[in-house]
Amino acid sequence: MDPRLSDISLPARLAREDEGVTLAELALATRNHGLPLEALVHDVTPAGLHYVLVHYDIPVVDAQSWRLTVGGSTGTALTLSLADLRARPSRTVRVTMECAGNGRAALRPRPVSQPWLVEAVGTADWTGVPLRDVLAEAGLGESAVDVVFTGADHGVERGVEQDYQRGLPLAEALGEDVLLAYEMNGAPLPPQHGFPVRLVVPGWYGMAHVKWLRSIEVTESRFTGYQNAVAYVTRRRADEEGEPVTRIAPRALLVPPGFPDFQTRQRVVRPGPVRLTGRAWSGRAPLAGVEVSTDGGATWARARLDPETRHRHAWRRWSATWHAEPGRYTLAARATDADGASQPLREPWNRGGFSNNAVHRVPVWCLP
Amino acid sequence: MDPRLSDISLPARLAREDEGVTLAELALATRNHGLPLEALVHDVTPAGLHYVLVHYDIPVVDAQSWRLTVGGSTGTALTLSLADLRARPSRTVRVTMECAGNGRAALRPRPVSQPWLVEAVGTADWTGVPLRDVLAEAGLGESAVDVVFTGADHGVERGVEQDYQRGLPLAEALGEDVLLAYEMNGAPLPPQHGFPVRLVVPGWYGMAHVKWLRSIEVTESRFTGYQNAVAYVTRRRADEEGEPVTRIAPRALLVPPGFPDFQTRQRVVRPGPVRLTGRAWSGRAPLAGVEVSTDGGATWARARLDPETRHRHAWRRWSATWHAEPGRYTLAARATDADGASQPLREPWNRGGFSNNAVHRVPVWCLP
Repeated sequence: MDPRLSDISLPARLAREDEGVTLAELALATRNHGLPLEALVHDVTPAGLHYVLVHYDIPVVDAQSWRLTVGGSTGTALTLSLADLRARPSRTVRVTMECAGNGRAALRPRPVSQPWLVEAVGTADWTGVPLRDVLAEAGLGESAVDVVFTGADHGVERGVEQDYQRGLPLAEALGEDVLLAYEMNGAPLPPQHGFPVRLVVPGWYGMAHVKWLRSIEVTESRFTGYQNAVAYVTRRRADEEGEPVTRIAPRALLVPPGFPDFQTRQRVVRPGPVRLTGRAWSGRAPLAGVEVSTDGGATWARARLDPETRHRHAWRRWSATWHAEPGRYTLAARATDADGASQPLREPWNRGGFSNNAVHRVPVWCLP
Repeated sequence: MDPRLSDISLPARLAREDEGVTLAELALATRNHGLPLEALVHDVTPAGLHYVLVHYDIPVVDAQSWRLTVGGSTGTALTLSLADLRARPSRTVRVTMECAGNGRAALRPRPVSQPWLVEAVGTADWTGVPLRDVLAEAGLGESAVDVVFTGADHGVERGVEQDYQRGLPLAEALGEDVLLAYEMNGAPLPPQHGFPVRLVVPGWYGMAHVKWLRSIEVTESRFTGYQNAVAYVTRRRADEEGEPVTRIAPRALLVPPGFPDFQTRQRVVRPGPVRLTGRAWSGRAPLAGVEVSTDGGATWARARLDPETRHRHAWRRWSATWHAEPGRYTLAARATDADGASQPLREPWNRGGFSNNAVHRVPVWCLP
C-alpha cells in the first residue's frame, strides 16, 4: 500500500514520565537555535545569536522575482516588488521577539516539539514599511475582520500539508509599529529570518511574525487556519477549544555569572561582590519592576531597572549586586508588568507548552 | 563542607543503553547550533547559519584595548593591536569547517557531550594575516616545536579550570593559508566566531581554530595541555593513550529534498524527477568523487561533482537526478578523497565521539 502523510506526520503527544529528549526533538534543537544567555549583554542581539525557529525548511527566495500580493477585502489588489517596498517611507523599530514555545522542555509532562529551555529570544532593529500604509493604499473593505499572511515555507504538521499562514485581527494589524520588514540590524534579512520580507508584530510571540512573506489577504470572517486554530492554542485538555496564543508574557532572564563547566553548564563564581544583570520584557504592558533572588525564589530583592527609552517594544536591562560567599546558590529573576502580571515559580502547564514564563533559575557554586 | 570544582565538573561518561538525550546535553544543543541542512545550497554559509560550538561562554572583548602577544621561543616578543594586524598584508581563504564531534549523537553508546547529529559544519571566507608572516617577524627559535594559541574564553572541563588553549605542530602553523582572521564573509567577526581575532587552520576540525585569540607562544617541547592531550583524542578504551584528532575526514551531506514534517523532520517528495544535491569535503586530500544511494547504501551511483576551483579548502557541490516513484526510500551520499579514504556505512565508534563520518542517510517518502 502506498505510504500516506499520516504515516510520517504524527498527532501531538506528551513525553512519558522520565522519557529523555528524543532524536527527533534533538534534530529540531540542533537546527533551530536559541540565544546563548551571555549574549543578553548586548542591547541589540548580534547576527546569528538571535533565536531562530523554522517550522519547515528555510526557502530560497529570489529577491528579483519576489512579489508580495495584497488583496481580499480591499478596494484594490496590489502586487509589490522589493524595490516598490524600498521606495516607500520606512520605519525602524527595535523589537524583542520570543518563541511562544520558550520554556517547553521544562514542562512535566513535556509536550514533544521544539525543546526550548529558556533561550528562545532576541532583540533586533527591524526596518520596513508600516503595514497600515500598504493596507491604506489598497483600501480596506468595511467588513474587514482579519489580515492573513502567507509565507513561502511549505511543509506538513500533524497531517496537514500547508504553507505557513497566520491571521491577525485587523485592529492589531493597523498598529503603527507593525512592519513589512526588509532589513534586520541595518542589513538585508538573513535567509533564516525571512528574506526578503517578513512581518513584524511587536509584542507578539514569534509565530505572528510571518517570514518569507508572499501574500496578504484581508478577510471578512475570522481566519481559522491551522496555525491559528490548531497549533498556537493554549489547551490543558486535547478536546477543549482553548485560548489563542497572542502577546508575550512578562519574563526576566539572567546573564549567568562567573564561568561554566562545558558539559553541565553549571556556574562557578568566586567570593566577593558579583554583578548580576540581565534583561526583562513584556509584550502586554510596560515593565513595572524586576526582582532577584539568591535562594531559588524563597526571598526576593528589588533590582535596578534601566530607565524606559523610546524603544518601547525592546527588553530593558536590570542589575543588582550579590555579595557571594562560598556555598551553593540558585539565582532567580522575575519581572512584573504594569498590569500587575508577573512570573510564576512553577511552570504553567498546557499541552502545547506555550507561554511558559516561569522564573529563570541559575544554579551557581561559589568556590573559595 | 565547601563545594569543589569536582562536584560540578564530572568525568566523561557514556549514555546508558536507551538513555534519552539529557537536559544538560539539550542545554548545549540549544545554545550551540548546526547548519540547517537546506542551507547547504549556499556556496558560502550566510551569517548565523554556520555551525557554532562554544566550550565555555562567548567572552566580551573590547577591540580597542585588545592585544595579541607573540612570544616564547622567538627572537622578539610582539604585542599587536587590531590596527597593527589590519595594517599588514591580508589574505582571504574560503574554508569549510566542521566540529570534530559532528555525528556524536548517533553513536551507540552515546558519549555524553554536545549532541551533534550531522550538521556541525559551515563554509566562510576568512580574511586576516597569515600566521607565518607574524611568526617570521617575531623570528622562530631553532628548537621551536609547537605553537600554542590561547583564547579569552575561560571555564572548567572534567575538573580542570582553564583558558581554552591548543597547540599546533610548527609545520602546520607555517602553512600559507593559516590565518589570524579578523573578518568573516567581509565583516568583522561576530562575537560567537571569535571577535576580534581567531585562528583559522584550513583542513583541521574546529577545535584547532582557536577563537578570541589573546596569545601565541612558540614552545620547544610538544604541548600537552588539556585540549590536545585529554579532550580531543580518539580512544576506544579510557585507559589508552589514543590518537590526537587533527584533520577533517571526508564527508558528503545531502540537501534533504522535498518538504518536511515539522515535528519529525521526515521528508516528502512527489513522483517524478527529483534533483539531489549537496556538498562534499575532506581536510585530508582533494575529493575524488561522490556517490549517491536511494536504498540506504545497498547500491551506489556516481554523482556529478562540480569542478575544483581555487577554493581548495572549501566544500564542493555534487548533484544527481533521482526518478522517484511512490514508496519509502533512504537516500545516502558518500565522498571519497584522493587518498582513497571514504565514509563507512556504520559509525566509527570512540569514547569522545570524534571524526564520525558515517554516510549521511535521509529517509524520504514519495507520496502519490
